[in-house]
Amino acid sequence: MQKLIEIFGNERVVLGTAIPKVYLETPLLAQKGIAQALVFPKTTQEVQDLALYAKEQQYHLIPRGAGTGVTGATFPVKGEILIDFSQMNQITAFDEATRTLFVEPGVTLEEIQTFVEAKGYLYPPDPGSNKATIGGTVATNAGGMRAVKYGVTRNYVRQMVVVLASGEKMTVGSLTEKNSSGYDLKDLFIGSEGTLGMIIEIALRLVVPPKITQSLLVGFDHLSDVSKTVNALLSSAVNPTALEFFEEEGIAYSQQLLGLSFPLKQSKNYLLLTVDGNQRADVEERLEQALALADKNQRVEYRHLSDEVEAQVWKLRGAIVSGIEAVTKQEPLDIVVPIDKITETIEKIKQMGQTYDLATITFGHAGDGNIHVCILKNAMTDDRWKKQLALFLSELYHYVALQKGLPSAEHGIGLLKKSYFLKEIDPTVLTYLRQIKAVFDPENRLNPTKMM
Amino acid sequence: MQKLIEIFGNERVVLGTAIPKVYLETPLLAQKGIAQALVFPKTTQEVQDLALYAKEQQYHLIPRGAGTGVTGATFPVKGEILIDFSQMNQITAFDEATRTLFVEPGVTLEEIQTFVEAKGYLYPPDPGSNKATIGGTVATNAGGMRAVKYGVTRNYVRQMVVVLASGEKMTVGSLTEKNSSGYDLKDLFIGSEGTLGMIIEIALRLVVPPKITQSLLVGFDHLSDVSKTVNALLSSAVNPTALEFFEEEGIAYSQQLLGLSFPLKQSKNYLLLTVDGNQRADVEERLEQALALADKNQRVEYRHLSDEVEAQVWKLRGAIVSGIEAVTKQEPLDIVVPIDKITETIEKIKQMGQTYDLATITFGHAGDGNIHVCILKNAMTDDRWKKQLALFLSELYHYVALQKGLPSAEHGIGLLKKSYFLKEIDPTVLTYLRQIKAVFDPENRLNPTKMM
Repeated sequence: MQKLIEIFGNERVVLGTAIPKVYLETPLLAQKGIAQALVFPKTTQEVQDLALYAKEQQYHLIPRGAGTGVTGATFPVKGEILIDFSQMNQITAFDEATRTLFVEPGVTLEEIQTFVEAKGYLYPPDPGSNKATIGGTVATNAGGMRAVKYGVTRNYVRQMVVVLASGEKMTVGSLTEKNSSGYDLKDLFIGSEGTLGMIIEIALRLVVPPKITQSLLVGFDHLSDVSKTVNALLSSAVNPTALEFFEEEGIAYSQQLLGLSFPLKQSKNYLLLTVDGNQRADVEERLEQALALADKNQRVEYRHLSDEVEAQVWKLRGAIVSGIEAVTKQEPLDIVVPIDKITETIEKIKQMGQTYDLATITFGHAGDGNIHVCILKNAMTDDRWKKQLALFLSELYHYVALQKGLPSAEHGIGLLKKSYFLKEIDPTVLTYLRQIKAVFDPENRLNPTKMM
Repeated sequence: MQKLIEIFGNERVVLGTAIPKVYLETPLLAQKGIAQALVFPKTTQEVQDLALYAKEQQYHLIPRGAGTGVTGATFPVKGEILIDFSQMNQITAFDEATRTLFVEPGVTLEEIQTFVEAKGYLYPPDPGSNKATIGGTVATNAGGMRAVKYGVTRNYVRQMVVVLASGEKMTVGSLTEKNSSGYDLKDLFIGSEGTLGMIIEIALRLVVPPKITQSLLVGFDHLSDVSKTVNALLSSAVNPTALEFFEEEGIAYSQQLLGLSFPLKQSKNYLLLTVDGNQRADVEERLEQALALADKNQRVEYRHLSDEVEAQVWKLRGAIVSGIEAVTKQEPLDIVVPIDKITETIEKIKQMGQTYDLATITFGHAGDGNIHVCILKNAMTDDRWKKQLALFLSELYHYVALQKGLPSAEHGIGLLKKSYFLKEIDPTVLTYLRQIKAVFDPENRLNPTKMM
């Protein structure tokens, strides 16, 4: 490992047992991670040198950002070298003429948001944690609340430099708005979870933010009415920015955690809807239209949210998972189904929860069919939890596949969903995914046990 | 070739010399095409059978749509079997609940537009020819006028079935709105110009159309003022749907062809701008904002267009190429540069035109840096044209690469741009493009001489 010290210097290499626990433990997994070393690159050249060294010495590499992922994708299981990109954390350039931001992989979303907002622009993807790094969110094609209107990370990456297992680097994508010049390699690397290459220099597309944002909270008794409203909204001119669904019970957990009050009280299911635009009259008209559609579908109650209450409600919505985790261990799911399958999928989850004796909290991005499910361990014994959870997941992922859905909308497959992903995928597709992997990483050096 | 008749029946196979001229001749190329056979599949199974037969007999295959492409991508040069998809022309399903349209590859854009408009939806991509088939526009990742706001074909393909050279078929993409489950194979096939697989069953994403569309025509003397206006517009809240630039001389050709009058007269360069929305006040305010930005940048004249005049101006804009072709042979280019490089690139083109004694007409999608250039042959002898054109293109594509631009924004590489594409591409990237090709088509059976 002398070579690692040559590449990174003493202060940016941590060996074996000295690696901090945070890299080797996760609430997601009972096992303890095993890593050879932990390094902190500062330059693309160092990453290339590391790749060459790993190739020569037959080491495996796992690139990682802030470790906010929830699939175990950066968890070391076979003595890999962990690459922590937190010291490649510079916003290297802002080109206003093309509305492009150039960043290193370790810059956090919060840093990006702060920077671009000060310049009068918006970087739309807003996944659960703004402590996540841009490198990590590109590797998982992260989404977020605003995806209904603005799309996901994929839609905002113009170009990036990737370092391959061979030590080669190449630029994929382009700084142009359009591109019909050769195969689209860029989109292959986006969402590849560190298995194809290390994502280094990223050029992001920014947009002009809307001047006005307003939210509406609507309560329903029946899930099917939420779905009907969502569907009507998506076929209307409302054009919502966000369209979030959650159960009463979910919000109770975040209320307990944050001690904030929630403005509505009478319903079992809530829809939180945001509309943005530049003219107040336009935004208000679209909100009225949204409300009329909710009225038609048996809404129980509603509230137009003032800026202050809006911030509070979004905070509560954002804290559902932390609220649950403050009380019990949980398994976080990220399934996605075609929009019109939301109700039956959630009903199936609730029914399966009874079958397997597992409490579930569902919430998520109703506007794009992405349902987050927290399966709660509560007082169940470890053994029974493990067994019941495996049965539940196996049945659920098969059900999702039958609905033409997928195991992950925005978190990725990682380690936790790998077996279910492999079970449901078309074998022909899997053959080709593996051949693509072999093109870029023939010796399987990059994040070797993940995804597939 | 008996097997072809077995697969397709007598009436859907045309052999050798009986193949109509239209498949073997193109104004783009002086040479005559050479094809073994021409077939008209009606089912995915037939395409799979054909692939197996071609593999067994070592034939090569070229999938083609309506033949509206302008890069020679479907031109047969080595005795390939041409697959004309015009008999796979059914809209197979419309799923309103997910706003998804299922089509066969031979459906034309015009047929799609007519169908979805009647249902109250919009399929945004609008490349030059609405006689183009959906299969062809997916294979080239076609764009169009509305790409500034709505994006390109890539953004509207949810899922498709591809038939590979092996005869295997697989589904790439998904019917869900989001997907972070494995590598993105779908985007690899979009824009692959028939070299990776045959695109068969396509599921398209539809959107809710805006209620109001209004256009503004602005004249400028100086190209740099057009660019400054475009840039200011893109950093503003105007959010244009289309932002088209053209020279006075270009519109003169389409006026000559169509016999329509053009509402402005005094300028050398024009910007045609469309804004859409659902509230008249909002659309009008954004148009006023656009005009104010043009005012700041020395606009010479302007005209708010009535619906009738708007249709006329768009018709004239759309007929520039046909207008030129009515008068002379021309070479159509489709370069794209970062937005802030438009002026200098067009100035370079004009200056090179003088150097090489070639007249050029430029126009295009100013909002996304996509510059169409028609290089006019006029009275030049064939030999000199060939020589001068090659010199011009070689210098231009190199210049574009230095600007971090690309040879094609929306037409593809095909046969005509192949040598220039290969000259400017990063050799590492090219290696990987070729390895990707080898994964899906190891014997190079599909469109073998194209792209790279």
